[in-house]
Amino acid sequence: MTRDRSALDDLLAAAGDDAYCIEAGSADSNQLYLSGFDAPDPFFTAYTGDELAVLVSGLEYGRARKESHADTVARLSSYDYATRAADEGRATALAGVYADFLADLGVESTLVPERFPVGVADGLRDHGVAVDVDRDGVVETLRATKTDEEADAVRRATAANEAAMAAAEDLIADAGVAADGTLLLADDAGEATLTSERVKEAIEVTLLRHGCALDETIVACGADAADPHDRGSGPLAAGEPIIVDIFPREKASKYHSDMTRTFSKGAPSDTVAEWFDLTHEALDAALDAVEPGATGADVHAAACEVYEDAGHPTLRADPDTETGFIHSTGHGVGLDVHEQPGLNPRGGELEAGQVITVEPGLYDPEVGGVRIEDIVIVTEDGYENLTGDYPVELVVE
Amino acid sequence: MTRDRSALDDLLAAAGDDAYCIEAGSADSNQLYLSGFDAPDPFFTAYTGDELAVLVSGLEYGRARKESHADTVARLSSYDYATRAADEGRATALAGVYADFLADLGVESTLVPERFPVGVADGLRDHGVAVDVDRDGVVETLRATKTDEEADAVRRATAANEAAMAAAEDLIADAGVAADGTLLLADDAGEATLTSERVKEAIEVTLLRHGCALDETIVACGADAADPHDRGSGPLAAGEPIIVDIFPREKASKYHSDMTRTFSKGAPSDTVAEWFDLTHEALDAALDAVEPGATGADVHAAACEVYEDAGHPTLRADPDTETGFIHSTGHGVGLDVHEQPGLNPRGGELEAGQVITVEPGLYDPEVGGVRIEDIVIVTEDGYENLTGDYPVELVVE
Repeated sequence: MTRDRSALDDLLAAAGDDAYCIEAGSADSNQLYLSGFDAPDPFFTAYTGDELAVLVSGLEYGRARKESHADTVARLSSYDYATRAADEGRATALAGVYADFLADLGVESTLVPERFPVGVADGLRDHGVAVDVDRDGVVETLRATKTDEEADAVRRATAANEAAMAAAEDLIADAGVAADGTLLLADDAGEATLTSERVKEAIEVTLLRHGCALDETIVACGADAADPHDRGSGPLAAGEPIIVDIFPREKASKYHSDMTRTFSKGAPSDTVAEWFDLTHEALDAALDAVEPGATGADVHAAACEVYEDAGHPTLRADPDTETGFIHSTGHGVGLDVHEQPGLNPRGGELEAGQVITVEPGLYDPEVGGVRIEDIVIVTEDGYENLTGDYPVELVVE
Repeated sequence: MTRDRSALDDLLAAAGDDAYCIEAGSADSNQLYLSGFDAPDPFFTAYTGDELAVLVSGLEYGRARKESHADTVARLSSYDYATRAADEGRATALAGVYADFLADLGVESTLVPERFPVGVADGLRDHGVAVDVDRDGVVETLRATKTDEEADAVRRATAANEAAMAAAEDLIADAGVAADGTLLLADDAGEATLTSERVKEAIEVTLLRHGCALDETIVACGADAADPHDRGSGPLAAGEPIIVDIFPREKASKYHSDMTRTFSKGAPSDTVAEWFDLTHEALDAALDAVEPGATGADVHAAACEVYEDAGHPTLRADPDTETGFIHSTGHGVGLDVHEQPGLNPRGGELEAGQVITVEPGLYDPEVGGVRIEDIVIVTEDGYENLTGDYPVELVVE
């Protein structure tokens, strides 16, 4: 994919550093984005403004030359790594090799991301390379605004996500209800219990068949749903809110999507119904605030106001609250499922091309949880809701 | 799971530091292991020898108290994080909050892992906390030796892995062969091509149904197989080596397994058949070398000798070679699919309770690739081969 590195060039010029360096495997999305190279073990990337250079093991050398964005690909053996590692140990040898690699690139000072490993940073400093920390997260900022190609990858992951959500909704809608309220798998002769695990399996198999991988999926019912990060487990129950939050990654592109619906098999309590309507209202209010120039803080405030006006606690009104609206309103989505920009009290100005989720919710262990999450692309005149066609309906049966 | 932290206590005493600290999300396996807390976003863990303390966001506070190993759970809001972040920015505020948290624990100096973020390390140093890098990877060393409970998790992931391998093998064995040698999906009325992607889907659906997640799977045929990290794509062909390398993670425990077989639908070339027999011989030679007190270097040497005696290049004979035996002989498996100990020229003494793969292979773009990988537990008197019952047979039909 095309990379616009002009913000990085500007930052290097302003900071007076010779390069921006990353040492990580491609599970670090800054590394994957800057190098364009997908490899599991840590490797070294240096961007000098003129040149993008990567230093990899012999095992990755051939593939790095074919697949990475680098202008120059070097390998550890060119810096006598094996002998040095045998003499000095792995970590010391690597720092020396990286220092020599930077010397060959004419780099005497470098910016690095906050999460650059301190072992490597201190090792480079010991070799006389100045290492400054980029406190502004320039690569995260670059990543936040998507090219059309990146946005298309998110669209494909979203289509897979909607198919998986429909599979989950169908299982819940078609379920039977036992005398004690437990949901029963519709097509099972033996009346097996419908569990969170069974719904997740349906979701995840659907995602795989649509070319997506996944880390975790949330199908949380009742008290589980009151904790926004609880993945859920065990039997599902009628009349209880069931939060289904799915965040797959398209395997080919590595880009994510993210959406949430809350379902109740049959009528829930009045409180849950009221929470759902209020959360739908908060979603609409937050979406209405999305446009270029508005800040993430503005969007977050719009959701908080709906909840606060109805008398619910929010984190901004009470930083210690454990019930009510206890998370931010949303986040960027891309190579990471949580990335820039944030829709929170510190969220900066939104820009066209950013992909964000909007996901208000209410939580209380006495009641359960309700969350609704759409994923949208910020456009020149507002936003395009990628999950806007998926119904927002609590009761399914 | 029970954690034996005595090696960590010894290290702290020897280094004269007050604590061992990690700042990362649970995708960092050292964090997951030390804190026992599974949360996506970075949080702070401090182990003082007397006390394990974690500092988390309000969103994770309730779950951390229930699920983590920590004696003490604190939250960011107790250190006025929101106000400080609004005033100073996120990174500076976090460093200040972490410094105050450490002051409350009586910590003036800390050891950190090599991959601790330099932004946090430099921030703590600015607040007068001494930060020393643990160059020996003490948490990785602790993780290398498994408890019975950890070993059982690997056994369950291995059982899932064998089921997935059988699904892949069946698809290849049952495939038809088109006139041009392309494999055809056996049960498909329209004679669809059997692709790498289709075999991966069968593998991954099987893994999901056995409670495992997965990041990637390798099904690589022909020239793809000549690159050990190529995941493979496109049509599979008869008479070509197809490397199937599967490395799932059990969802509940987060522990991995890892195994590889190489299959050929029908007879391959004499060269491939000879490579396979030689690789089987290298596997047996390496396995024979596995016992407590032997080093990872010894095991690696045993595999290298088989290949070198037969005239094949190895990395130890030629660090620049791009064909032959171009990776290490194996690695530890646990919370990470690649962890300590390494079976490579620098590999130290093996200990009972370690879980390792043994995976010799040969690669050449002109021929393809062959790899056979078993996963074993080092025992008091040798090893237990967890995948030893899965046949090692090249030709399937």
